[in-house]
Amino acid sequence: MLRVIAIDKIKDINYKNAINDFLQRLNNRLKIDIIELAPAKYINFDSKEKAIDKEADKILESLNHQDYVIILDDKGKHLNSHEFSTLIFDTLNHKHITFIIGGAYGLSSKIKDKSNIMLSLSKMTFPHELARLVLIEQIYRAYCINSNIKYHH
Amino acid sequence: MLRVIAIDKIKDINYKNAINDFLQRLNNRLKIDIIELAPAKYINFDSKEKAIDKEADKILESLNHQDYVIILDDKGKHLNSHEFSTLIFDTLNHKHITFIIGGAYGLSSKIKDKSNIMLSLSKMTFPHELARLVLIEQIYRAYCINSNIKYHH
Repeated sequence: MLRVIAIDKIKDINYKNAINDFLQRLNNRLKIDIIELAPAKYINFDSKEKAIDKEADKILESLNHQDYVIILDDKGKHLNSHEFSTLIFDTLNHKHITFIIGGAYGLSSKIKDKSNIMLSLSKMTFPHELARLVLIEQIYRAYCINSNIKYHH
Repeated sequence: MLRVIAIDKIKDINYKNAINDFLQRLNNRLKIDIIELAPAKYINFDSKEKAIDKEADKILESLNHQDYVIILDDKGKHLNSHEFSTLIFDTLNHKHITFIIGGAYGLSSKIKDKSNIMLSLSKMTFPHELARLVLIEQIYRAYCINSNIKYHH
């Protein structure tokens, strides 16, 4: 199975609906658990780094350390949709996968050190809601590629 | 000003709303005209290539040939959001810009030959609705970077 640990909720109903549409298409065929963690209130910390560190602790509590961990990071590796599909389904043969999506200020190196791979969806910076939509769409696409079924628009 | 020539309409209301949200935030500050062209009905053509060729003719009719032409293509150049912002605003000093987003089967080489730059949003393949959302979000982000205003989530 796939897990997504994400800092912050999706507040915008349009992104929420677009994401749920892909989750529904995958329903019963590929299970995706989404765990949303509350972002640290930056105002309560001396620095962004300390806030990110606090978020990192919460992520580590939620993380199943047996999982194959894929972090979304714009400095990560660029895969095309076929390579991404191969990575996912080869890995699922022997492990669960957890994706981690950081908050507005990114992810602590504590989390990066725990990852098996850092993946970049784009060289461009996306807001977290768009990043989650792109990730879920690519997981759906990866499923279609792997199952050799037509991508349903 | 910016123009976007796109094959096909955005049918999904969630993408339409998400795109309109960015257009409204830019309203009166950076004008974006979106020209949607009907896709060729593939069933009426012997091959995908002929259908794409027909779409190319319609794009060329809509294209202002004085414009700086940026084609979205997954084999194109990867820019980060700051480089994209510089490209857009340096170019707008002396030219209008037209972006071209192809249909489900891509763009004819006739169109690629007319482009000043081919740009890739990601190595991953996106459905056209998601590609348009990412483009419009990046134009909004480029505007924020160039104007030195905080990106509004």
